[in-house]
Amino acid sequence: MTDPQIERKLIEIMRVISESDKPIGARNIADELQNRGYNLGERAVRYHLRILDERGFTEKHGYNGRTITTSGRKELDDALIGDRLDFVITRIEELIYKTDYDPFSKKGNVIVNLSTVDKDDFDNAIDVMKYASSGDISISPNIKVFEEDSDPRIYVPPGCVNIATVCSITFDGLLLKSGIPIKPAYGGIIEMEHNDPVQFLDMISYSGTSIDPVKIFMMRNETSVLDVLDTGNGRILANMRNIPSSAVEKTKEVLKYLEDSGIGGVLSIGDSSDAMVGAPVEEGMAGILVAVGVNLVAAVEEAGIPVDTSPVSMVLDYSEMSKL
Amino acid sequence: MTDPQIERKLIEIMRVISESDKPIGARNIADELQNRGYNLGERAVRYHLRILDERGFTEKHGYNGRTITTSGRKELDDALIGDRLDFVITRIEELIYKTDYDPFSKKGNVIVNLSTVDKDDFDNAIDVMKYASSGDISISPNIKVFEEDSDPRIYVPPGCVNIATVCSITFDGLLLKSGIPIKPAYGGIIEMEHNDPVQFLDMISYSGTSIDPVKIFMMRNETSVLDVLDTGNGRILANMRNIPSSAVEKTKEVLKYLEDSGIGGVLSIGDSSDAMVGAPVEEGMAGILVAVGVNLVAAVEEAGIPVDTSPVSMVLDYSEMSKL
Repeated sequence: MTDPQIERKLIEIMRVISESDKPIGARNIADELQNRGYNLGERAVRYHLRILDERGFTEKHGYNGRTITTSGRKELDDALIGDRLDFVITRIEELIYKTDYDPFSKKGNVIVNLSTVDKDDFDNAIDVMKYASSGDISISPNIKVFEEDSDPRIYVPPGCVNIATVCSITFDGLLLKSGIPIKPAYGGIIEMEHNDPVQFLDMISYSGTSIDPVKIFMMRNETSVLDVLDTGNGRILANMRNIPSSAVEKTKEVLKYLEDSGIGGVLSIGDSSDAMVGAPVEEGMAGILVAVGVNLVAAVEEAGIPVDTSPVSMVLDYSEMSKL
Repeated sequence: MTDPQIERKLIEIMRVISESDKPIGARNIADELQNRGYNLGERAVRYHLRILDERGFTEKHGYNGRTITTSGRKELDDALIGDRLDFVITRIEELIYKTDYDPFSKKGNVIVNLSTVDKDDFDNAIDVMKYASSGDISISPNIKVFEEDSDPRIYVPPGCVNIATVCSITFDGLLLKSGIPIKPAYGGIIEMEHNDPVQFLDMISYSGTSIDPVKIFMMRNETSVLDVLDTGNGRILANMRNIPSSAVEKTKEVLKYLEDSGIGGVLSIGDSSDAMVGAPVEEGMAGILVAVGVNLVAAVEEAGIPVDTSPVSMVLDYSEMSKL
């Protein structure tokens, strides 16, 4: 087949066509792609549509535009199944690559989680998150709120509000941008004593799962973030990444620059390749343990407010976010 | 420190002492250990108790027996945290090693999952399992029922019944006993069409998680085992292991012998190292996809009956189990 980049675009175009309830033309497809974060002009769309026509996946209806054919729908379904099955690390690596926040100019992208709450619960949820952001159990107190139809990039279900929190994988992106090779290793639930991390109670490797580990642990409802905030003891969500031991000093430097932007949440930096808080560390590497951003949201759930969260969801300009 | 085998015994003895509400003597400790499947006589217990006393972890109260000290309790807590954190593959490999069912003499151990249901739901649960066992979505129709206090090996919560089903990891044990090197790879949820496996929809590697993948997928309630039984289409739980490609013929032979014992459930055997149903297969290896035993139990949950399941729980003599 052709270039995977082109294949990706063909799939996205087919997705737009299949979601339209009537034939749709190149200009409208280009607009819709723009909404979804794909920067593909009308002319480029036309080029890709010709490929789809040739393969028999789309069909032209004069000036009305195109519809998807039966074999196109099958192709799309297969591709979407494949999509879902990517190990989560593949998607994370794409977002890491898109992270370009610069702590000096205070501009650029960070990675965010998206959490959906009912409009009626919004004020209470924000109160809890504000309280939670006072502790050292999340990466940043900055959030962004999306209301229904407020932003073409984000779909907000009717009657709901989406809240973006900074995702801990942002660190991986920022370290990579500073030339430090980094690899997300484990996500899990960690026992805290006197505000210090003691031990992973359970963990899942980022590289062997198609479901985000943090999402799995949120679903299990085992956190006690509010207890940690109140007493220093309890269970929070955290993840660990590995860097070369020789990059530990440079990493600490980068983290220092980030403090100024309100980006923190590093629980522990290993100084050797000994296992850290129960997680194995490869020879020659050091672990960095970070409290994940969705601890703010886990606290909301602990307070009895239903939330649905997609960790590591998208990139967002950090300057668009404001302090809780 | 000493031999890990001895450390293991010391921990188990401390666990028994800590769970007793009064001082407990060597004989009662030995009995209790026996109940938990540790074969350690009174004399051996006395020997280990002396080590614990020396370390300051236990304390003797004349003839009344021993209690645990504060530092003993801390040591125990640390050890139990370590216990929980083992990747699930470690425990699975221990059970694989203990599997010794012989399809010719029809004697020996298989690995089982344990599911707990309320006594009042028992009859309905068995009806659903019986129906589910008529399809090819589990490894064996044989189960064993444990009632409260019916078997010293198994703790059954008050008012409940435990049901043991054959675990798909039994295959790994049986193939290993036949000299075929085998490694559990992924557990996940698989799309079935016309009773054939199409694609993993999600999956988690056995080697990178401290929580059993099948337990995670049961919690997500995404199966539609009853649909597969009714129409051939739907989602069931399955897992994949890899064997050397050169062992495929021998594996098919072993599986043939097992049919006579009612052990089946193999969905697909790869004949090359191409990715199978969306799961990567290493070069030179072939994948074996098996419908897991707890599909019987997932069907019970789909029917609205609450069940709590521990997959890959223990080994049990297959001759103790009987057909649904």
